[in-house]
Amino acid sequence: MKIISSFIELDTGEGISLHDIMPDIKLAVAKSGIKNGFVTVTSQHTTTAITINEYEERLLDDVKTFLTSLIPPNNSYLHNDIALRDCPEDEPENAHSHLAAMLLGSSEVIALAEGVLVLGQYQSVMLYELDGPRKRQVSVQVYGEE
Amino acid sequence: MKIISSFIELDTGEGISLHDIMPDIKLAVAKSGIKNGFVTVTSQHTTTAITINEYEERLLDDVKTFLTSLIPPNNSYLHNDIALRDCPEDEPENAHSHLAAMLLGSSEVIALAEGVLVLGQYQSVMLYELDGPRKRQVSVQVYGEE
Amino acid sequence: MKIISSFIELDTGEGISLHDIMPDIKLAVAKSGIKNGFVTVTSQHTTTAITINEYEERLLDDVKTFLTSLIPPNNSYLHNDIALRDCPEDEPENAHSHLAAMLLGSSEVIALAEGVLVLGQYQSVMLYELDGPRKRQVSVQVYGEE
Repeated sequence: MKIISSFIELDTGEGISLHDIMPDIKLAVAKSGIKNGFVTVTSQHTTTAITINEYEERLLDDVKTFLTSLIPPNNSYLHNDIALRDCPEDEPENAHSHLAAMLLGSSEVIALAEGVLVLGQYQSVMLYELDGPRKRQVSVQVYGEE
Repeated sequence: MKIISSFIELDTGEGISLHDIMPDIKLAVAKSGIKNGFVTVTSQHTTTAITINEYEERLLDDVKTFLTSLIPPNNSYLHNDIALRDCPEDEPENAHSHLAAMLLGSSEVIALAEGVLVLGQYQSVMLYELDGPRKRQVSVQVYGEE
Repeated sequence: MKIISSFIELDTGEGISLHDIMPDIKLAVAKSGIKNGFVTVTSQHTTTAITINEYEERLLDDVKTFLTSLIPPNNSYLHNDIALRDCPEDEPENAHSHLAAMLLGSSEVIALAEGVLVLGQYQSVMLYELDGPRKRQVSVQVYGEE
């Protein structure tokens, strides 16, 4: 089995933003030369998520509205009492971002058959930034045979 | 490493419905001849999810009640203004289904040891239909050695 | 491809509790001798979840508060009418735990490169107990090459 590791790096938007990383994943697959196998996509951060869904502009706004209402940033969270924690003073108050990341999930695994990711017509793999803007990394590892 | 690709096809129920796909996955594993490795199960749609939990009739009704209350279908969503999007006029108004799919997740990965899926007694892999009824496909790929 | 199967066993806390299983996963990886490949981590229960996030004490309390508010244990759930189900009389009333498990997810997959799990600085793999205390098992399977 051949294994090719890579990282996608991206600069994200303010607060909650959704980023289509399908082009980067397809490029990593093409470069790997692997035709049959699978791909693991894993976020490298605790306030981002990896989700497969439709990359449609108006739906992306619905996601922001929904998450903000489900987990209000201004609620009271223990994690946000920065002074009471053993961490730098300029640590962000982002408990809501952690909670959203837990619900959305940090990894996805996608089958690869004859060089093509086995996904439906409207499915994109997306990075969900939940506490931006930041520089972010996503691990993309391709496994299989040429 | 041997890799065997297949799809489960099923007709789903009205609105939200949950479908036990364990028998189909076990059949795919048996047909593959693979004894040790793993299985990836990935939804091919943006308004379905793959989840591992207990397939218990009354719990399934609780899921429908919970999701409908958490993400009300009749709330106002930008994705549902079909006329403002670049898409066919008969596109369904299903933003709530997309949001539920994101929370529940699109893929699971299960270890395979001595021909048996490594899962607990009450765990079933299920397709969650979130905008039915429709014809749906699930990718099941089995990897490993005989 | 080498495949090494193991289970983590642990005794969990009352109600909702979060358990850092990173040390156990790292041990399983070290024992396997596998340097490049990946690891699947799959819960063996329907009222626990596997999630990757920051193991920070005050955030863990926020998780408990959030989940209890999102899915109140004392709401009315069909699954909790034990007498109406085909199951032992002493079955726990834990519909809320199942619903939380579905949202949080049962499996994660993590790339392994040069003997190190490909995760960010603050990421820990955790077992979320949602209906404790209990004895629990987590499947950890390591795949790849030495």
